[in-house]
Amino acid sequence: MTKASVQAPANARPQRENSRDALLDAASALMRENDTVEIGIVDIAARAGVNHAMIRYFFGSKEGLLFALLDRDVYRRIRQLDRLFSLKVTPTDRMRIHLRGIVDTYYAIPYLNRLIQVMVREADPVRVRHIGEELLQPIARAQERIIAEGIAAGEFRQIDPKLFYFNTIGAADGLYSNRFTISAVFGGEPRADEALHLRYREQTVEILMRGLLKDG
Amino acid sequence: MTKASVQAPANARPQRENSRDALLDAASALMRENDTVEIGIVDIAARAGVNHAMIRYFFGSKEGLLFALLDRDVYRRIRQLDRLFSLKVTPTDRMRIHLRGIVDTYYAIPYLNRLIQVMVREADPVRVRHIGEELLQPIARAQERIIAEGIAAGEFRQIDPKLFYFNTIGAADGLYSNRFTISAVFGGEPRADEALHLRYREQTVEILMRGLLKDG
Repeated sequence: MTKASVQAPANARPQRENSRDALLDAASALMRENDTVEIGIVDIAARAGVNHAMIRYFFGSKEGLLFALLDRDVYRRIRQLDRLFSLKVTPTDRMRIHLRGIVDTYYAIPYLNRLIQVMVREADPVRVRHIGEELLQPIARAQERIIAEGIAAGEFRQIDPKLFYFNTIGAADGLYSNRFTISAVFGGEPRADEALHLRYREQTVEILMRGLLKDG
Repeated sequence: MTKASVQAPANARPQRENSRDALLDAASALMRENDTVEIGIVDIAARAGVNHAMIRYFFGSKEGLLFALLDRDVYRRIRQLDRLFSLKVTPTDRMRIHLRGIVDTYYAIPYLNRLIQVMVREADPVRVRHIGEELLQPIARAQERIIAEGIAAGEFRQIDPKLFYFNTIGAADGLYSNRFTISAVFGGEPRADEALHLRYREQTVEILMRGLLKDG
């Protein structure tokens, strides 16, 4: 690290930040394209167009890189939640927007649940606690808050919000994490394109909302 | 193989069949308990109480063993589908029974989708085609048949049955394939016990049925 700092010219800072982002983007693209979270340091670096030693420099290890990627991916969505609660809309509309966002998330980063699974099994306990408390709980709590709001407003039926969270992430992820099943069931390319994604989003949100709304 | 046959005593056949099942059961238990499909030959054999050379003898390789397990797990459910269609019930009740069975399946074998993902990526093309055509398509087609029946009977609304299949396997799997999220969201043990499973099954089936039924 010191060596790299010494070698870096005065104007290197933006360049360095670009390499960091390039590595995160490369890891994300590789996991998405290869439908796996088992990716190698050399491939990530090659894709990013930087020396693979930079992974150690920026992230300490591949685990550190994947952790930073998960953090970036999820925080982006948590910031969207803040905006969601500032909207002056009914609980029904707020939940609809939220659910569309969840389906969009799995379309954009279909490796999300699998990355969490691997990180939780292999990462150090401090990181695991961070994932639970600062990435997953805020999303689950936001959804719980919308449900409480909707029940109070008489729009939603009584439902277990914690279980609904798993219904949501499961149903939203269903199409994108089972790529082979797409080709087995639909025929053709094992991949959800934009048109299929939009149809899936509409149907998934409709089913979940019907499950939630008082009058079906 | 020949060597093992020669060494086997005359009454070895039932014993040998037991060892085969014991290996399948051991692999299933290890994947369930460790929440991963990355398990080793030595561990499987130790758990089954047989020599690990028997894996090669019965299945050719670990891939062969996992393929046989997937086959056994899924065929058991396909046979249940035959019984399901012989029941004289309404499409609504038939779908309800079917959906309960799917949630039960992911509770019993939470590694199912992940095992399919790994097999499809790593197995030989003949096995991959078998998984698609003889394991996944019969289940998707059965569900499509119930939906067509329900639409014709005026019980279900118009819905895309292929997309509904992904809603179903996703929502049903949601709780069981995200064990860490269970402890992050609920606190306590990262595992769905029988009581939680029954609550999840009831809510999941209710949500999917409301999504399907004409009058919500």
